[in-house]
Amino acid sequence: MREEVLRRIRARDWAPGAAIPTEEALAGEFGVARATVNRALRELAEEGVLERRRKAGTRVALHPVRKATLDIPVTRLEIEGRGQRYGYRLLAEDRDEPPPAIASRLGLAKGAALLHLTALHLADGRPVLLEDRWLNPEVLGRAAPDFHAVSANEWLLTHVPYTTGDIGFSAANASAAEARLLEVAEGAALFVIDRTTWEGERPITCVRLAHAPGYRMQTMV
Amino acid sequence: MREEVLRRIRARDWAPGAAIPTEEALAGEFGVARATVNRALRELAEEGVLERRRKAGTRVALHPVRKATLDIPVTRLEIEGRGQRYGYRLLAEDRDEPPPAIASRLGLAKGAALLHLTALHLADGRPVLLEDRWLNPEVLGRAAPDFHAVSANEWLLTHVPYTTGDIGFSAANASAAEARLLEVAEGAALFVIDRTTWEGERPITCVRLAHAPGYRMQTMV
Repeated sequence: MREEVLRRIRARDWAPGAAIPTEEALAGEFGVARATVNRALRELAEEGVLERRRKAGTRVALHPVRKATLDIPVTRLEIEGRGQRYGYRLLAEDRDEPPPAIASRLGLAKGAALLHLTALHLADGRPVLLEDRWLNPEVLGRAAPDFHAVSANEWLLTHVPYTTGDIGFSAANASAAEARLLEVAEGAALFVIDRTTWEGERPITCVRLAHAPGYRMQTMV
Repeated sequence: MREEVLRRIRARDWAPGAAIPTEEALAGEFGVARATVNRALRELAEEGVLERRRKAGTRVALHPVRKATLDIPVTRLEIEGRGQRYGYRLLAEDRDEPPPAIASRLGLAKGAALLHLTALHLADGRPVLLEDRWLNPEVLGRAAPDFHAVSANEWLLTHVPYTTGDIGFSAANASAAEARLLEVAEGAALFVIDRTTWEGERPITCVRLAHAPGYRMQTMV
């Protein structure tokens, strides 16, 4: 029935923005259970093909938006998943007041100190990712981890995994310092991921992940 | 009950990799309908916190993977959504044999000709996105669109919207030609999106979208 729904939208039997028949009517027409219709319509809504509103019923999307789902794995597993040997080097660990932009993104009071970690992730011995992270020390608990042994990326995903937040993707030319650490030319195009996360109301971390040239984030759409 | 499930996982009452109680048992324990339990567990599985297998039941994920959903809108709507004036300029339109890498990605026979479109998208009169697209002419039908008037990006999303395919994100230094068209310095870091799409078995398009510096793709996680 999914194929037939798509065919009707494509053929404009059901025009963009128009209401489609009720689940009950479709179940009757196709001779399937209403739960089957419901699942098919829900999937098409998740894909952006249909729009469902509580009172207005289901409509054909006026402007179809494609949606893609990205997996954001632990860096170690991502590198090992490519068949490469993973390496990790903590470059610096301090307690410091974060720059105003980061304090404000995390909703912190002026003067609050955070843990500041800089680390390099390696694949087959070559640096591939530079991590610059500000971390709320409250989340560490009594058994503070040794960030020389385990990356904050992995420790957080296994110990404080149920965070919410925002994530941004952009491109940036490598600064002189980044170029030196990543062993690339100054100005090389880096793929940058910025994440800010909370656990409920509590700010957890703000991190900048700068990937060396050659990195490609891929998914299905 | 979602919060309580997360609390138990966090507290390691339910360890990574361990099976959790059945939906029936949880419904009894929390005094809620089984459908409510089912929905909560399904959501947590979609977020990567739990793993559900048809026969093995539901387990705590061994390596939690965060998932992020990206909206991929029509470029015009994305620019107008930022409150900017949208502009579009078709730079070139030819029929040509695509480079071998693109022909092979689309699964085309050697010698097959495609429509090759190059276009610039503008925000408030400034170039922000360079589109380099190979398009299967079979999808155009009898009423071939005028790609001077409507971008292939928008025409495809409204006329052939139900495609599948893959999408990749990377960073690249602007070539001399790209720099000239986007009015940026040669070598500037561009955010590049590559998409290859099919409709069923039929190849539709292979496109490279190079965003001028300043572009940021953002979502919640």
